[in-house]
Amino acid sequence: MAKTKRICTLLLRLLALAATLSAAIVMGTSHEEANFFAISFEAKYSDTPAFKYFVIANVFASVYGFLVLFHPPESLLWRLVVALDVVFTMLLTSSLSAALAVAYVGKKGDSQAGWLPICGQVEKYCHQVGGALAAGFIGVVIYMMLLLYSIHTALNPLLV
Amino acid sequence: MAKTKRICTLLLRLLALAATLSAAIVMGTSHEEANFFAISFEAKYSDTPAFKYFVIANVFASVYGFLVLFHPPESLLWRLVVALDVVFTMLLTSSLSAALAVAYVGKKGDSQAGWLPICGQVEKYCHQVGGALAAGFIGVVIYMMLLLYSIHTALNPLLV
Repeated sequence: MAKTKRICTLLLRLLALAATLSAAIVMGTSHEEANFFAISFEAKYSDTPAFKYFVIANVFASVYGFLVLFHPPESLLWRLVVALDVVFTMLLTSSLSAALAVAYVGKKGDSQAGWLPICGQVEKYCHQVGGALAAGFIGVVIYMMLLLYSIHTALNPLLV
Repeated sequence: MAKTKRICTLLLRLLALAATLSAAIVMGTSHEEANFFAISFEAKYSDTPAFKYFVIANVFASVYGFLVLFHPPESLLWRLVVALDVVFTMLLTSSLSAALAVAYVGKKGDSQAGWLPICGQVEKYCHQVGGALAAGFIGVVIYMMLLLYSIHTALNPLLV
């Protein structure tokens, strides 16, 4: 029973690592050159602070997710792992929300503020950002599951 | 010792309730009419989906924060409280990040996307939104402290 649980957790952690890593790579490689009337401009993730934050948070979470794979299950540091899981889940949630909010303005615009949507001009860029956000969302959901599972088992000594 | 802890937790929860409630009220009452050349427009929180989400999340967190004050310390539901703390901390983090990201664009603009900053036109509105975000930030920090404290004590049966 304990072994099955261990394998499940390991699989979830591997999935989370894959999700955060691909979110960082897909967002990090997103760019497109476009011509708008006579003006040529390049849309890049690094122009938008929220997207930069998203890449940095996912890189950090990937490094943590990689290191924690080698954490022995008998170690006494598991309380630290749960606390770090909380911190990294927060970091990922926060970066995903910030990137989503800006991407929403990019897609729909904001008529009150006079901000026009830009997805019509840089469609490929928009799709790539959307893919990165989807991968980031999967990462957040898996970390959330791992966290609630830790709380469910670890907070009840009878279940461990 | 247990009583001091109980009082500390209660005080933190009261502070968190005050922070989320004031964040919701300050953001919810933010609006300003401005004239830009010949055009008159009204800046309101409800025009921006991220700010609406911020208000809703803080209202939900306030209701939860109010109800949990009456939760008896001997109750067996404390594991549910920790899990709900995780969920609400996530919700607050996510709404704060989304609102911050949009507020940042409102303050600084985004030259690549052609979005102009609007804080020059609606200064009072911007300050009020800034105040709401500060209160929301305090709420997130307190919930984070409560969560890490729960993990610190509750995950170690010897410390309870």
